[in-house]
Amino acid sequence: MSDFTATERTQVRRLPKRGVYDREAVYRILDEGLVCHVGFVAEGKPVVIPTSYGRKGDRLYIHGSTASRMFRALCAGADVCVTVTLADGLVLARSAFHHSMNYRSVVIFGKATSLDDPAAKREALQAFVEHVAPGRWQEIHQPTDKELQVTAVLEIPLEEVSAKVRTGPPIDDEADYALPVWAGVIPLELTPQGPVPDDRLPQEIAIPEYLRNYSRRRR
Amino acid sequence: MSDFTATERTQVRRLPKRGVYDREAVYRILDEGLVCHVGFVAEGKPVVIPTSYGRKGDRLYIHGSTASRMFRALCAGADVCVTVTLADGLVLARSAFHHSMNYRSVVIFGKATSLDDPAAKREALQAFVEHVAPGRWQEIHQPTDKELQVTAVLEIPLEEVSAKVRTGPPIDDEADYALPVWAGVIPLELTPQGPVPDDRLPQEIAIPEYLRNYSRRRR
Repeated sequence: MSDFTATERTQVRRLPKRGVYDREAVYRILDEGLVCHVGFVAEGKPVVIPTSYGRKGDRLYIHGSTASRMFRALCAGADVCVTVTLADGLVLARSAFHHSMNYRSVVIFGKATSLDDPAAKREALQAFVEHVAPGRWQEIHQPTDKELQVTAVLEIPLEEVSAKVRTGPPIDDEADYALPVWAGVIPLELTPQGPVPDDRLPQEIAIPEYLRNYSRRRR
Repeated sequence: MSDFTATERTQVRRLPKRGVYDREAVYRILDEGLVCHVGFVAEGKPVVIPTSYGRKGDRLYIHGSTASRMFRALCAGADVCVTVTLADGLVLARSAFHHSMNYRSVVIFGKATSLDDPAAKREALQAFVEHVAPGRWQEIHQPTDKELQVTAVLEIPLEEVSAKVRTGPPIDDEADYALPVWAGVIPLELTPQGPVPDDRLPQEIAIPEYLRNYSRRRR
């Protein structure tokens, strides 16, 4: 599948060397993330709501209650902007001005389509669960018809998309390298901790293989 | 200082028990986070951009280049929505429908004001650096007049604000507790790794006290 084409909105203008349009690189960021921030316009004003998501091929899926404000707005065909950000490190320079962060972020522009077909909804929800824990869908109680009815699933095409990536050490002004101040990077990682079994889980149910050494890292 | 008053926009309607309006609780979430997602409307359409931030009292600060699209839009008095989300855990239920996440998020609505006074700008940038690494401001090369000139600093009042928090185990339908599937929580933590000194850092410059055992945790 071809890479993304920069549009008026997705062209990275500030620090263009941070721009990424390579489709596989963008998908790796989306597949590592857990939370996206969905932006829409309500009564002329911006609203940004965090939510989880799934991806299948060149489609992103978000879901929620059919009664929520976000879904009512987006089902009506409003424009949406979905952003996923991974914080990779604090970049501590010798000057305040050059402090920065290492990060990977993806910005998606488009319009959402509400999925109505129960089979399509079910497939999207499978992508959702598999995004969080690959292998889990087969084990769990899959959605009932009634649950599908009250779950809104929105599909957003991955067409107008760009990513921005910063890596590496701080870049200071030449004169500042002589300053006697510690400089470098503190890497950050979203680290899964040991699984906490539900209080009502029978002791004989072991932690499944796909949750042992669980990691989000996709690089 | 008094707690936040729910408005038409900040009233948590879906699952109202997750709503938090306690000012100190909201500030703890903001102080733990590193990245906010800034939503604004450009040519009638939503845009969501990740950026770092600082807080001082009842003001949030974001900054960037005076040339950026976001700052041009926001300096002109546009409405803004700033959202900070901390992902605390994967909530793995026995049914697909009850899968969830534990999280803490803050949504701020308002209008941004561009700071023009160099002293006010400098104070905001101090809040910025101290947000990331308390104690660092005194050690580093503080902004020059020229750097202040090319840095846009926006102040957003913490007035129309709400938080949402989910904690605890999955809540399954009663019948599903009998299913032989692992259920529970995988806690997530944004974990700082060991500091990586800049290649050009003289060996005799030790890691400062405030970066040893660095942690974002504010709970």
